[in-house]
Amino acid sequence: MADTAANSPPVAIVMGSQSDWPTMRRAAEVLDDLGVTHVARIVSAHRTPDRMYDFARSAEGEGTKVIIAGAGGAAHLPGMISALTHLPVLGVPVQSKALSGMDSLLSIVQMPAGVPTGTLAIGEAGATNAGLFAASILALEDPALSARLQAWRAARRDAVAETPVDE
Amino acid sequence: MADTAANSPPVAIVMGSQSDWPTMRRAAEVLDDLGVTHVARIVSAHRTPDRMYDFARSAEGEGTKVIIAGAGGAAHLPGMISALTHLPVLGVPVQSKALSGMDSLLSIVQMPAGVPTGTLAIGEAGATNAGLFAASILALEDPALSARLQAWRAARRDAVAETPVDE
Amino acid sequence: MADTAANSPPVAIVMGSQSDWPTMRRAAEVLDDLGVTHVARIVSAHRTPDRMYDFARSAEGEGTKVIIAGAGGAAHLPGMISALTHLPVLGVPVQSKALSGMDSLLSIVQMPAGVPTGTLAIGEAGATNAGLFAASILALEDPALSARLQAWRAARRDAVAETPVDE
Amino acid sequence: MADTAANSPPVAIVMGSQSDWPTMRRAAEVLDDLGVTHVARIVSAHRTPDRMYDFARSAEGEGTKVIIAGAGGAAHLPGMISALTHLPVLGVPVQSKALSGMDSLLSIVQMPAGVPTGTLAIGEAGATNAGLFAASILALEDPALSARLQAWRAARRDAVAETPVDE
Amino acid sequence: MADTAANSPPVAIVMGSQSDWPTMRRAAEVLDDLGVTHVARIVSAHRTPDRMYDFARSAEGEGTKVIIAGAGGAAHLPGMISALTHLPVLGVPVQSKALSGMDSLLSIVQMPAGVPTGTLAIGEAGATNAGLFAASILALEDPALSARLQAWRAARRDAVAETPVDE
Amino acid sequence: MADTAANSPPVAIVMGSQSDWPTMRRAAEVLDDLGVTHVARIVSAHRTPDRMYDFARSAEGEGTKVIIAGAGGAAHLPGMISALTHLPVLGVPVQSKALSGMDSLLSIVQMPAGVPTGTLAIGEAGATNAGLFAASILALEDPALSARLQAWRAARRDAVAETPVDE
Amino acid sequence: MADTAANSPPVAIVMGSQSDWPTMRRAAEVLDDLGVTHVARIVSAHRTPDRMYDFARSAEGEGTKVIIAGAGGAAHLPGMISALTHLPVLGVPVQSKALSGMDSLLSIVQMPAGVPTGTLAIGEAGATNAGLFAASILALEDPALSARLQAWRAARRDAVAETPVDE
Amino acid sequence: MADTAANSPPVAIVMGSQSDWPTMRRAAEVLDDLGVTHVARIVSAHRTPDRMYDFARSAEGEGTKVIIAGAGGAAHLPGMISALTHLPVLGVPVQSKALSGMDSLLSIVQMPAGVPTGTLAIGEAGATNAGLFAASILALEDPALSARLQAWRAARRDAVAETPVDE
Repeated sequence: MADTAANSPPVAIVMGSQSDWPTMRRAAEVLDDLGVTHVARIVSAHRTPDRMYDFARSAEGEGTKVIIAGAGGAAHLPGMISALTHLPVLGVPVQSKALSGMDSLLSIVQMPAGVPTGTLAIGEAGATNAGLFAASILALEDPALSARLQAWRAARRDAVAETPVDE
Repeated sequence: MADTAANSPPVAIVMGSQSDWPTMRRAAEVLDDLGVTHVARIVSAHRTPDRMYDFARSAEGEGTKVIIAGAGGAAHLPGMISALTHLPVLGVPVQSKALSGMDSLLSIVQMPAGVPTGTLAIGEAGATNAGLFAASILALEDPALSARLQAWRAARRDAVAETPVDE
Repeated sequence: MADTAANSPPVAIVMGSQSDWPTMRRAAEVLDDLGVTHVARIVSAHRTPDRMYDFARSAEGEGTKVIIAGAGGAAHLPGMISALTHLPVLGVPVQSKALSGMDSLLSIVQMPAGVPTGTLAIGEAGATNAGLFAASILALEDPALSARLQAWRAARRDAVAETPVDE
Repeated sequence: MADTAANSPPVAIVMGSQSDWPTMRRAAEVLDDLGVTHVARIVSAHRTPDRMYDFARSAEGEGTKVIIAGAGGAAHLPGMISALTHLPVLGVPVQSKALSGMDSLLSIVQMPAGVPTGTLAIGEAGATNAGLFAASILALEDPALSARLQAWRAARRDAVAETPVDE
Repeated sequence: MADTAANSPPVAIVMGSQSDWPTMRRAAEVLDDLGVTHVARIVSAHRTPDRMYDFARSAEGEGTKVIIAGAGGAAHLPGMISALTHLPVLGVPVQSKALSGMDSLLSIVQMPAGVPTGTLAIGEAGATNAGLFAASILALEDPALSARLQAWRAARRDAVAETPVDE
Repeated sequence: MADTAANSPPVAIVMGSQSDWPTMRRAAEVLDDLGVTHVARIVSAHRTPDRMYDFARSAEGEGTKVIIAGAGGAAHLPGMISALTHLPVLGVPVQSKALSGMDSLLSIVQMPAGVPTGTLAIGEAGATNAGLFAASILALEDPALSARLQAWRAARRDAVAETPVDE
Repeated sequence: MADTAANSPPVAIVMGSQSDWPTMRRAAEVLDDLGVTHVARIVSAHRTPDRMYDFARSAEGEGTKVIIAGAGGAAHLPGMISALTHLPVLGVPVQSKALSGMDSLLSIVQMPAGVPTGTLAIGEAGATNAGLFAASILALEDPALSARLQAWRAARRDAVAETPVDE
Repeated sequence: MADTAANSPPVAIVMGSQSDWPTMRRAAEVLDDLGVTHVARIVSAHRTPDRMYDFARSAEGEGTKVIIAGAGGAAHLPGMISALTHLPVLGVPVQSKALSGMDSLLSIVQMPAGVPTGTLAIGEAGATNAGLFAASILALEDPALSARLQAWRAARRDAVAETPVDE
């Protein structure tokens, strides 16, 4: 927004640990498909709270427009980033071992009034959709991206077979 | 986005029934606080599917930028609107009678890859946050709104008392 | 019902994606067993909403009498078809990855008053039973089918061993 | 179906106890609205199993075409009737005190392959929808009823206001 | 209880299908360990309701004193047998595929006032404990069995190692 | 069982606190109806563990035959008594404030292999049924009680009205 | 621990908002009963993240030994404080409106390896127990407090009536 | 605390069975890392209640300062030890087979007011954190341990990579 915005890409993908990457890379992949530049970082609310603060507080100044945050279990990263910035923050509940991501989902979505996190589905579908949602935000002011997004969705639509087949 | 955009306000708030309004008005109220114009409509996925189609398909052309959709129980409205437009769609799970909104939440958030709905918390907190989230999207290209949004959040921060009091 | 009914078979089985077929084929199989003709199609509420509209709105005119719809996660297909036709619609919650079909079940069964979906069990048992339920509807006016249905059930009853055996 | 069918009305509404009636009367009311004759009886799987057997086994012979069964908690009535007749059986999970009907829902919907119960939503919405679903079955062979059913739904559609109002 | 009691063993183990046997055999095994004679039968509430009636209604007359019933999903067998006899009935929730036995548990344990089923844990532990519970009932009037039961438990107690070991 | 059995009544009803009595008195009431003598005591696993030990260890020697134990939340009383005696122990999950008795239920029913607790439904229905279950055990050797129990159930059966009435 | 510790009391009770105080005051009350000095502050992870950082980072230096943190919904406060200090942190899940504190509980207890939060029960019982747990930590090095704690527990034990009474 | 404290190590790790050790050894490992001596024992609430009593009642006198207790299913060990000692007790919910540890969690955390158990996450993460929490208690009076604990956490912090990598 600022004229002096640094050269960060518009979307930042952060996650609590390396183990979240197989999920969160789906967000990166769909952004790649759509030609939206992005950066991926490990930012742990619990192990690296200072890094989280620095990241969230400096994000707007560096040119970030949308933040995608994924975490599992007592998943505090998306909500804490939402508390530290007024940029739109999208949360991805990573599927957890014991409770299959129900803990991740509730920890992310049940934010109190005043501090929103836009939450997507548990797991890889949610990560893909976080990428798409970020693109839909950026597309509001980027007709070319909007066209690519509509084409991406149309291609998905056209790929739906008419009838199921035995495999 | 289009030069010829109709004169719809940038945010549309839709809900499945009149009974959702006590929840969804929280979205309207916070948008009012932030000076973001908006329209509120009843659009039922199940009782008025044609209205839903017409609404979702024409939203972008009429100038809508962000859609907030609230519904309860088998809450299909947010996801179906997400299927019918590439605009950002925010979903608010309205608290249901028997299952307290767990059914609403899962019906809204567990969207498949390809069709995102940014989901907020169950109930009034979620509706307030949907309004804030919509504002945060619009603020990306509206410095004055961004300043109002930051001021709104700062006021909420400053209103937090230091110590609890007996009531 | 209409004299001019097209030559569609009486039962249509629709599902949200190819990945639902291993579940939904159980419906097709039991209808085959009972000699009830049927058609199977992929109709995604989220990826192909227009196809869904066209399908649901034209179903009665083409001679369809009962619709079986299966979907998983935020499973909107059965309920949306119920909204678009007054034919009986049976919903099958496909078992989902993270939440084992609890999301599918609640998304399908918790329909609001006015728009019914008759819901069966999560997974393959539900698909088989959707086929049987469809047959039981058609059997109301088809004594030969009723006899086949009763024979099918009797055979299942007679196949129950008296005592369990180690395997 | 049988020429010699007794003079029972086409829909039988049964429930486990008098306490289920405030829920189940919604089914009766919508059938009244649609001009579908019906009978309501208390048939408890647990307290009156013989009555349940007699009812289910004689239903078809007496002219019943669709059975609506409601029960709460460990709700066995719908499934047991499904086991005792090949008529279509619709189950309504009555909202229970401790678990809000989640126990009723799972007890009714999770039937094994071979014995289907078409399950509706928990509580009054489910009872209304059971009535509608029964009507949609009967309407397959009754154009006048089909017309009334379509009119009922159209009236509900037309009653949806365009905009929400403060109350 | 009756002098003329037939020669049925005191414990009957029934289950809804052959697939429940790997669970339910744990009940048989512990009864074998304790020297309690028993019979195991497949009695499906849903596929063989007449067999269930006959079994439950004749159990006391044939000399059965305690019935152990296992079933999964919408598990109606234990509760229906409880409705058909005043003998003590023990229910074992078999672990189900989608919902891990939570459906089985609620379908068995949430019986209405008047018709009790004594419910054990989900799965094999529950089956073992159903056998033990049956033995504890019979031991009330059988000092030798009581001694064997106490010895069985003492042996389990004595087998608990003092310290855990790596494996 | 022992000749020297003290003069304790055959059924002991224990509960974790006075606040459980409105639930547990249902067990006492049905035992009164059936003419089964009983004693009710407050025995808290957490606040009075020594009392619990003394109670459970001395129960058989004092002539107790069946123990009914009710508790809520992290409900350890039924299972711990089961660990301390080989008498049959029936558990009643008292409805808890936050989680409506789901915590009570799982804490009672999910006992490990070797230490059974026969669990009844959450709340008052479960307490009534615990009383009935205890009576069904005692009735195995008491024909007069068996007759009273059967009469009690028959009266309940006969009290079921044929048709529901508006209230 | 440090000789130069500031004059903060040993226990700090923090909560996300004034609305948590009716729950959290139970911790303060039991600490008062036990003669443990404490301070209560409102520290919101989401509205006042800087205050939270300052509080947690300075707690040890100011003489705090144990922190009790209560929050509801997506309850991040206890875990984030755990991330910012190595002092023992006790978490109290405040009962939430829609989900009765299940969201609060999972958000607090499901912390990843490396950052512990000792979690107590949902609601007031949990707050009381957090106070007691804090006292039990401090009592390890304070024999007089240990004596008071034991006396408090003994008084609770002695207050348990022998038999329940009708009220 | 007592001058005559026996030479037990300050931390005792107890668990209900050998099968809990793969989980609970995580507590032992982190205590080893931190140089905190400890002992591990199998103490089953259900199979060895006397051992549990003896252990809990003698723990303080033998020099134990913190007890870590792990159990699964109807997990009574942590709460019962909490009832038998005023030492701090940490509970670890072991992941159970059918319900993935939700039963373990609720059985441990939902303790009534007056008897606290500090509960950690389900499974291995919870066991690691129980060890860390115990260390944080002991570190209050042991500056060297406090330094080691801070170093351990710092090392974990420093090990967090900046960016995720494909694997």
